[in-house]
Amino acid sequence: MEKFKDVQSQSPPVTSHLDRVGITNVVRPIEVSRKKTITLIPTFRVFVDLPPSRKGSDLSRDIEALEDVVEGEVEGRSKGIEYVAELIVNRLLERHPYATYAEAHLTADYFLERSNPKGRKTVEKYTIMGIAKKRAGEEAQRYIGVVATGISVCPSAMTTVSRLVGRASDDPPFISHNQRNDVTIIMQVPNGIDVEVDELIDIAEMSMSAPTYELLKREEEGLLVLNAHKNPKFVEDVVRDVVKNLVNKFKDFPDYTEIEVRSESYETIHKHNAYAEKSGKLGDFKKELNGS
Amino acid sequence: MEKFKDVQSQSPPVTSHLDRVGITNVVRPIEVSRKKTITLIPTFRVFVDLPPSRKGSDLSRDIEALEDVVEGEVEGRSKGIEYVAELIVNRLLERHPYATYAEAHLTADYFLERSNPKGRKTVEKYTIMGIAKKRAGEEAQRYIGVVATGISVCPSAMTTVSRLVGRASDDPPFISHNQRNDVTIIMQVPNGIDVEVDELIDIAEMSMSAPTYELLKREEEGLLVLNAHKNPKFVEDVVRDVVKNLVNKFKDFPDYTEIEVRSESYETIHKHNAYAEKSGKLGDFKKELNGS
Amino acid sequence: MEKFKDVQSQSPPVTSHLDRVGITNVVRPIEVSRKKTITLIPTFRVFVDLPPSRKGSDLSRDIEALEDVVEGEVEGRSKGIEYVAELIVNRLLERHPYATYAEAHLTADYFLERSNPKGRKTVEKYTIMGIAKKRAGEEAQRYIGVVATGISVCPSAMTTVSRLVGRASDDPPFISHNQRNDVTIIMQVPNGIDVEVDELIDIAEMSMSAPTYELLKREEEGLLVLNAHKNPKFVEDVVRDVVKNLVNKFKDFPDYTEIEVRSESYETIHKHNAYAEKSGKLGDFKKELNGS
Amino acid sequence: MEKFKDVQSQSPPVTSHLDRVGITNVVRPIEVSRKKTITLIPTFRVFVDLPPSRKGSDLSRDIEALEDVVEGEVEGRSKGIEYVAELIVNRLLERHPYATYAEAHLTADYFLERSNPKGRKTVEKYTIMGIAKKRAGEEAQRYIGVVATGISVCPSAMTTVSRLVGRASDDPPFISHNQRNDVTIIMQVPNGIDVEVDELIDIAEMSMSAPTYELLKREEEGLLVLNAHKNPKFVEDVVRDVVKNLVNKFKDFPDYTEIEVRSESYETIHKHNAYAEKSGKLGDFKKELNGS
Repeated sequence: MEKFKDVQSQSPPVTSHLDRVGITNVVRPIEVSRKKTITLIPTFRVFVDLPPSRKGSDLSRDIEALEDVVEGEVEGRSKGIEYVAELIVNRLLERHPYATYAEAHLTADYFLERSNPKGRKTVEKYTIMGIAKKRAGEEAQRYIGVVATGISVCPSAMTTVSRLVGRASDDPPFISHNQRNDVTIIMQVPNGIDVEVDELIDIAEMSMSAPTYELLKREEEGLLVLNAHKNPKFVEDVVRDVVKNLVNKFKDFPDYTEIEVRSESYETIHKHNAYAEKSGKLGDFKKELNGS
Repeated sequence: MEKFKDVQSQSPPVTSHLDRVGITNVVRPIEVSRKKTITLIPTFRVFVDLPPSRKGSDLSRDIEALEDVVEGEVEGRSKGIEYVAELIVNRLLERHPYATYAEAHLTADYFLERSNPKGRKTVEKYTIMGIAKKRAGEEAQRYIGVVATGISVCPSAMTTVSRLVGRASDDPPFISHNQRNDVTIIMQVPNGIDVEVDELIDIAEMSMSAPTYELLKREEEGLLVLNAHKNPKFVEDVVRDVVKNLVNKFKDFPDYTEIEVRSESYETIHKHNAYAEKSGKLGDFKKELNGS
Repeated sequence: MEKFKDVQSQSPPVTSHLDRVGITNVVRPIEVSRKKTITLIPTFRVFVDLPPSRKGSDLSRDIEALEDVVEGEVEGRSKGIEYVAELIVNRLLERHPYATYAEAHLTADYFLERSNPKGRKTVEKYTIMGIAKKRAGEEAQRYIGVVATGISVCPSAMTTVSRLVGRASDDPPFISHNQRNDVTIIMQVPNGIDVEVDELIDIAEMSMSAPTYELLKREEEGLLVLNAHKNPKFVEDVVRDVVKNLVNKFKDFPDYTEIEVRSESYETIHKHNAYAEKSGKLGDFKKELNGS
Repeated sequence: MEKFKDVQSQSPPVTSHLDRVGITNVVRPIEVSRKKTITLIPTFRVFVDLPPSRKGSDLSRDIEALEDVVEGEVEGRSKGIEYVAELIVNRLLERHPYATYAEAHLTADYFLERSNPKGRKTVEKYTIMGIAKKRAGEEAQRYIGVVATGISVCPSAMTTVSRLVGRASDDPPFISHNQRNDVTIIMQVPNGIDVEVDELIDIAEMSMSAPTYELLKREEEGLLVLNAHKNPKFVEDVVRDVVKNLVNKFKDFPDYTEIEVRSESYETIHKHNAYAEKSGKLGDFKKELNGS
């Protein structure tokens, strides 16, 4: 009799392949080094599949795979959150020899020093994601994601208010409602190519009515508000402009590159949110924008 | 030997009085009948104190006390969420004879049919609270609370933008930033008096730049936006106006009536929120407003 | 010049089809009548697609579509949460003539009277979902979902503890760790067939180590704990047993019926959660269980 | 006419002193150096009071006060999260000359390397808090807080199950239910004294049935489960043991030292949580434990 029985490796009474078995809600600080070294505190979700012949997955190996990577035992400090995800899926498949597929998701707060409308320095918060998916024997697929919060000003209410007060023109800027807008971009990173999360954050911010800032003195606040009202946008406009800006920026990427874009607006005149979404492949996005 | 030992009634090794022992995160539909019968689905937190002589509180009695009330075994369908809380604390002290104090908190979504700026019917969501606190041998103290979400328009950015564009006047309405604003009011309800949560919701909504609505057709949206921009308010203004409106409405209530007012604004030009708060007794609020 | 310009119907500068445009975080009480009439307070998400030729979707029509259904203007009180979703997607396509696709998701707390291990009555909380998806000109597809929380006892730690204390057998019941386990089932409901959420809740509960109860007196608590320890299960076992029980119950449903099953266990010996998942079509599940 | 009007400094129409005006939900990485330098990513809430004579508080000064401290302009890298809070309240009162009171709350994830029951290294997650409160002209009062998650095993169900199976003794260890238990300790840090958050985390963990670990191989898991079942505890026991351990550890602290202790248990046999709480002053806690 073995000292401590390996219950996980037994045959289960019901034989059925499971798509994802793993752990969620693991939080652990990591250091990544691209332009400089920074500390991230991601929440991790990692999974492998499970063949019908096994009762359980050895979940402690998920933590070990994660620690191997985080502690730099695999290949030193990683270049970015998506590389951490990639190293984890590689290690997951080594540590779970019965698995044919592995997946890792990391989500973390991220901070950039920005300049507000008068050039004053301010530190802004974003969410970033690193995802990797790997079939045994194939290359891992990496994805990066960002959520950036900015402001969107409603174009429709602006024209309505213009007419209610008898204003001669409907043109911006004028009084409207405006809201916090969360823009999410998730993009596949083709093998052999590097994409910075900062590039996706720039695209998210340039696609809203305006980016927002933690520190704004009086005139800076006024300029931000004025600029945003010169550039009113629906959530639909935000998503389309992200798509256009992504296509312009990454036009040389392979057509199969997967992209997902979302804009959610926390309406100030309603208790509910407005939402728009588009997913697909870069090649199809390019064709559509070129009208072909 | 008793069949199933009462571990809770044993003496604990460490003797120390505990302030609150009970259960949280209980969710249970109830019906209350004031003007009409409605279904609420509150989250309950109920507590009693525990003397140093007892190892544990019989927590199943908390659920029984709650069920006694919810099922109407105590005194039929209740008039309101604060009466449910009161019935529960009475029952808690009956079912926990070793306790000298009981507390119950209920928090629920609540809906009112409202008229939007052109009179169109719309159903709006609020949060309401019912709280009761009772010392053994004394009357229970009841509290009601509301959270209402509306819009607040920034008065400072409005004057700055006016000057940036060379507008002749700083007066409202003009372009500014505006945000979702959560107004919270919690008020003691003196014994023998009834206060409707609807009255507190009305005060919360009249104290913001404007209430908001789920359903707004084009002109209605424009009117809401225009009206809110005619009435710009800081979170500080919102709290002071709630205080003023409460004092006006409930001026005949006893001076000891406890009141807590909060306004939190989900800033559209920042990622952070603006916040203001005032707590105290009605008598002190009256004196302060009267300049004495 | 029209009085209030229809900005949404203009051509956008970037032409790109959007997959989903709509509103999220709408909360609204509804009544549904199957065996009896109950009040649900779902959170709604409703979407239509948007052609490249239109700048915006008329989001107020989403609220109107929802209200048409909730107020019973369409066809009286609905039989269930998935029928409400279906009525909404039908109405969305009527109210958005430019749309070719509509989707509605409803998620609500739900309560059932249950009997605990000694037959005592207790009221238990679940989450239910109703989903509908419709392409213009095709029949809507309906889905129902449930989340049920129960207890799972770890089979592996039970054998390890048995050996650590020199117990003669590894067999259950013995000391182990046990946890809250959230089981999620989402299943397509083929047209012309009715599935009760109660049936899915029953399957979720019978697939865990044991269901749990809000009210348990001393012996009832002991019986629940003992029964759960006689029936230890990994999250993997829970998912496989749900799959087996679904296949047994709904074996006559069409092979294309889509099913998604998840089990998440809030581990008491870790800060993280254990997770297992399986998605697919009923026909494939049947083949796999029959070993073909 | 001043270029950009200072609306905040105007007299408000309603004159009423506000207790707290400030900003919430600010997230910003900081470095603190005690034994070593670590990165924390706290969520900040900072407030000052507002006299009746002023319409608004200059909220951009809150961000500036926070940045002064975070960027080390005030006095270099801070020793701990409660010192960051103290530096912020000092700076708040300098930047808001009209204020007589300031308050700062920081809450952050925190990680410690721990040894699991067989000595294997594992990294564990906690929550820590730093709080400071200052009246103008007085010394700031500092507080530190921790939340540690461990396991608690129910003593009552253990005796009931023992009797249900006809076991000769009720003594631990035996089958019971066990749960995640969040222990919160908030303690005033008297001026001139340093308390490490690690000391409070140690006390929280030694007061539960057992601490828990992210990484546990088979035997380590068994030992943790066995040890926890040898040490069954109600939430009431956990709170009393924290109180006893705090009094032992900090017996030389001044009697006025404020302490708050909470234990919340995510019951695996119920959908609700069990909860116990005690607040007060160290001097009173000492008297109570000494039976005087």
